[in-house]
Amino acid sequence: MNEQIQQQHKYNTEEEVFNEIIPGYQLTIDKILKTGITLFPNNEIVYWPPNGRRLHFTFKEFNERVNRLGWVLKELGVISGDPRRMGTRVAIFDWNTHRFLELLYAVPMYGAVLQPVNIRLAPEEIIYVMNKSRDEVAFVNADFLPLIKAIAPKLEYLRKIVVMHDGEEPIKIERISNAEVYDYEELMKEAREFNYPEELDERTVMVMMYTSGTTGLPKATIFRHREIVLHAIAVLIIAVWNWYPAHYLRFTRNAYNPLGEPSLLLVPFYHVLGWGAPYYNIMGGTPKIVLPGRYEWNHIIRLIKEEKVKNAGGVPTMLYLMLNSPELKDVDLRGFLWSLGGAAATKGLIEEARKRGVILTNGYGLTETAPVVIAPTLSPDLIMNLSEEELQELVVNSIGKPLPFVQARVVDEEGRDVPKDGKTVGELVLRAPWITLGYYGDPEKTRAAFKDGWFHTGDLATWDERGFIYIVDRAKDVIKSGGEWISSLKLESLISLHPAVAEVAVIGATHEKWGERPVAIVVLRPEFKGRVKEEDIINHVRTFVDEGVIPKWWVPDKVIFVDELPKTGAAKIDKKVLRDRYRDVLIK
Amino acid sequence: MNEQIQQQHKYNTEEEVFNEIIPGYQLTIDKILKTGITLFPNNEIVYWPPNGRRLHFTFKEFNERVNRLGWVLKELGVISGDPRRMGTRVAIFDWNTHRFLELLYAVPMYGAVLQPVNIRLAPEEIIYVMNKSRDEVAFVNADFLPLIKAIAPKLEYLRKIVVMHDGEEPIKIERISNAEVYDYEELMKEAREFNYPEELDERTVMVMMYTSGTTGLPKATIFRHREIVLHAIAVLIIAVWNWYPAHYLRFTRNAYNPLGEPSLLLVPFYHVLGWGAPYYNIMGGTPKIVLPGRYEWNHIIRLIKEEKVKNAGGVPTMLYLMLNSPELKDVDLRGFLWSLGGAAATKGLIEEARKRGVILTNGYGLTETAPVVIAPTLSPDLIMNLSEEELQELVVNSIGKPLPFVQARVVDEEGRDVPKDGKTVGELVLRAPWITLGYYGDPEKTRAAFKDGWFHTGDLATWDERGFIYIVDRAKDVIKSGGEWISSLKLESLISLHPAVAEVAVIGATHEKWGERPVAIVVLRPEFKGRVKEEDIINHVRTFVDEGVIPKWWVPDKVIFVDELPKTGAAKIDKKVLRDRYRDVLIK
Repeated sequence: MNEQIQQQHKYNTEEEVFNEIIPGYQLTIDKILKTGITLFPNNEIVYWPPNGRRLHFTFKEFNERVNRLGWVLKELGVISGDPRRMGTRVAIFDWNTHRFLELLYAVPMYGAVLQPVNIRLAPEEIIYVMNKSRDEVAFVNADFLPLIKAIAPKLEYLRKIVVMHDGEEPIKIERISNAEVYDYEELMKEAREFNYPEELDERTVMVMMYTSGTTGLPKATIFRHREIVLHAIAVLIIAVWNWYPAHYLRFTRNAYNPLGEPSLLLVPFYHVLGWGAPYYNIMGGTPKIVLPGRYEWNHIIRLIKEEKVKNAGGVPTMLYLMLNSPELKDVDLRGFLWSLGGAAATKGLIEEARKRGVILTNGYGLTETAPVVIAPTLSPDLIMNLSEEELQELVVNSIGKPLPFVQARVVDEEGRDVPKDGKTVGELVLRAPWITLGYYGDPEKTRAAFKDGWFHTGDLATWDERGFIYIVDRAKDVIKSGGEWISSLKLESLISLHPAVAEVAVIGATHEKWGERPVAIVVLRPEFKGRVKEEDIINHVRTFVDEGVIPKWWVPDKVIFVDELPKTGAAKIDKKVLRDRYRDVLIK
Repeated sequence: MNEQIQQQHKYNTEEEVFNEIIPGYQLTIDKILKTGITLFPNNEIVYWPPNGRRLHFTFKEFNERVNRLGWVLKELGVISGDPRRMGTRVAIFDWNTHRFLELLYAVPMYGAVLQPVNIRLAPEEIIYVMNKSRDEVAFVNADFLPLIKAIAPKLEYLRKIVVMHDGEEPIKIERISNAEVYDYEELMKEAREFNYPEELDERTVMVMMYTSGTTGLPKATIFRHREIVLHAIAVLIIAVWNWYPAHYLRFTRNAYNPLGEPSLLLVPFYHVLGWGAPYYNIMGGTPKIVLPGRYEWNHIIRLIKEEKVKNAGGVPTMLYLMLNSPELKDVDLRGFLWSLGGAAATKGLIEEARKRGVILTNGYGLTETAPVVIAPTLSPDLIMNLSEEELQELVVNSIGKPLPFVQARVVDEEGRDVPKDGKTVGELVLRAPWITLGYYGDPEKTRAAFKDGWFHTGDLATWDERGFIYIVDRAKDVIKSGGEWISSLKLESLISLHPAVAEVAVIGATHEKWGERPVAIVVLRPEFKGRVKEEDIINHVRTFVDEGVIPKWWVPDKVIFVDELPKTGAAKIDKKVLRDRYRDVLIK
């Protein structure tokens, strides 16, 4: 071994090796659209809002509108970016419409930056967000004109507003505060053919998204083309992969239907880009993408029936709303596939869905992770050795395993892997090709989130010897009682199994002796109101103590009945508000 | 529109925007292996050579061997590269074995460069290739020791040879020419745990592969990690996607088998990395990867039976060999999936395969394209509107549509799209994220291949209004008769339909009046030898003139019967040799 290799450094500088390098091919959003229109030119996009006309476009027609929209952006003076300089930030205030979908392609293809605004935020938060991003152009659904009028005077950078609506007559507003106002469809009519940049650098920033803000002020995550494209590819792989057992996304051709299933895009596009569905559905060849416009459950039920939708997804609250709409009581939901995400579903909700024949899928992600990073993938040995029931339990109880190219670990406070015993709790940390670059203008939080080169989720988890990961609780939600952990998530799941409970949140309330003790905030189903008491709930939880499911000291100290639970803009239960409200309920 | 946006350039330099950028996540080969062992730790790799022991490893055990191999590379003095400097070139002389598979991961993960040697090349070509690449280390299957001994004195850079064999006793050779000799398994025994670089740059070169050389000297294509990883991802997507109709790769879980099918890796790894199978099979969770070692058809038949293989692929010649092995006559091949590639299959071969119940898939690629870039993807509208028979015809006659992220065009000599009429012939040009960076040390050929920013395949094609692409001929193989084109491919396909024809090649022979005229070189099936004459073949071709399939002037001027056709290292018919041999057969 002593004769070392020495030729190495004499000759192969880049020039000598390659002589001539071909221009790099970039992973940019236009490639997703090109793939869709090349492979599936006649697939459909349907926009059908409540009380409105049903519009439909083939992928090819959609592409033509995206092309015209490029011209519109140019006419508006939008500036294109590159890896060292972000393009114009373009705010969007809209429901899930075909126009929002057009913007999700046109803005990044132009080289500008999407800034989808969470319309459920408080006006003050929206002002904060838009000024922080320096949004200069806003595309606004007419439904949000009152909102934009109210906040416009405080928007420091806004110069142009484009109003989007389904009416025949153009909007007749010239200015709102300092901004000129235009009509979307009028601009589209005037638009000529546009040549998008042929090869944008994949490191160009394409979207700025704010975390939903369950803790503190919204933080701006930044993603480049590369991240969003790689996320879409990976979701497509697991979607077409994990069809067995029948727990998986079915937007693309699958074992049950060679055509794929019509998909209803319910997750708001302003919420982590509708979990990426606007991209992977077009690349994956969904035969029909259904866009519901403004959320009205009666209308959504109608869409599900008339468009033959068999595939949708959203946070548990949405599923709860669907299952509990009186209008839906007589609709056959057997075989409907619901992709859960955004928050953990309680056992009660899961059982309710199963009773109706709804097939549930699971997954895990955060705004910072684009979002999907973990989902159940069952290896051949598990499929062979576990019963169908055991497989289903695994898919619903665990969040699964990392997606292709994702690395996930559960670590202790020193960053060491905790034992893979399914018991020892640690923090879930991640590496993936589509995690945010960091928080815009917030180096400290960026540094804290990425310490040791791993993204720290703030979620407490366990993993088992097979590598399946289980979420125990958000680090911020876990209850610390006498130095020991109590999982609010677990308690919520158990309480939800009580037949009278519609929704529940468990928080840690300050306790003089134990530091914190669990308190359950419960919404009862209408028919049980006034008939169920605190001790009924407590006794219900005690049965799980008797069965050995939880320790005795996990039983909540108090149950509070309320008419509704506060929600965040992403329709998750807002525990921050609940903690502020009930923190001191055990003191005095 | 006159009020321009001017805020733009004041503030957002990269520093201000990101403050702190997290370290980039790279698309490198280690991520493929990590995905495989995370999701499918207990999937299997079987190495079972002719007259040898059956060895098997789980993906997890395989990963442990890859880890030790990193240590071996270090001990050998292999040097790691980066985007500006290639690492040590590591030549490999081997059949498809588990050791070759280990090298396909370990060498790039180390940062060095794979140089799989086409063992079918002439010794002089191998010397040319190894000196051009400056191979310093060679891993050599003991079967090729005579070859390496013969050429070693002419290998300018070779310093270390590692011998791989299945015997119990270590190899007892100290030197071959200037190179020190080691024993693979002995080095592995001594190896300690190795830490591969944690995050290699994806722009690091990982493989140098030579085109099979049907025209001129072999050219060295160069690929980085990024290209090979993106190719594996895209093939995985279409493989799990296009299961309908039943024409597709089934190595991963699918509609027919939730476990996926055991896959036999027949395409030699030295031939475009076995078409990428060593990577997408591990990432895609193939339950069992079967490696046959030295090619012996009787042994391969045994593997197919005993390992329950239902999935393999290779050039048409391999399929021909499988279908025509006497040992296979009584083996039930119904449902066996064969992925065709590397060359066009004749109609005769396709019919023969169908009679045996073998399901054929199609695809298109070149060494320069890593290789797969085009394959049949059927959109929902086609599946709904065409009959099963029409779909099957489409899948076999057309090479399909571009893979996700691939752009393909058929262009005239000025680079303009030819009409999408299924008739007008042009050159197939490509853009894709996994096309070679260029030819090593050959700027002129690189420039010629990539003129206008598109890779020029040299293949003549048509496309139809649906976007399906049809190969007419290699530009070099097309026959120019009186200024008009004759497709050698089409003639071969028609001649192959004659029951006596085993193999056929059609070339253009020099003709004083027409410039070139077609000449058919035919191998007859043994039972027809001496019983079929030139005029039988000519009359057979004339029936297609009568049916209007081809014009009258396409009928070959001459048929030459031979005992076998010359083949290239990639088992394709070597038309260059045929042209040299028969070019002047019409002159005198």
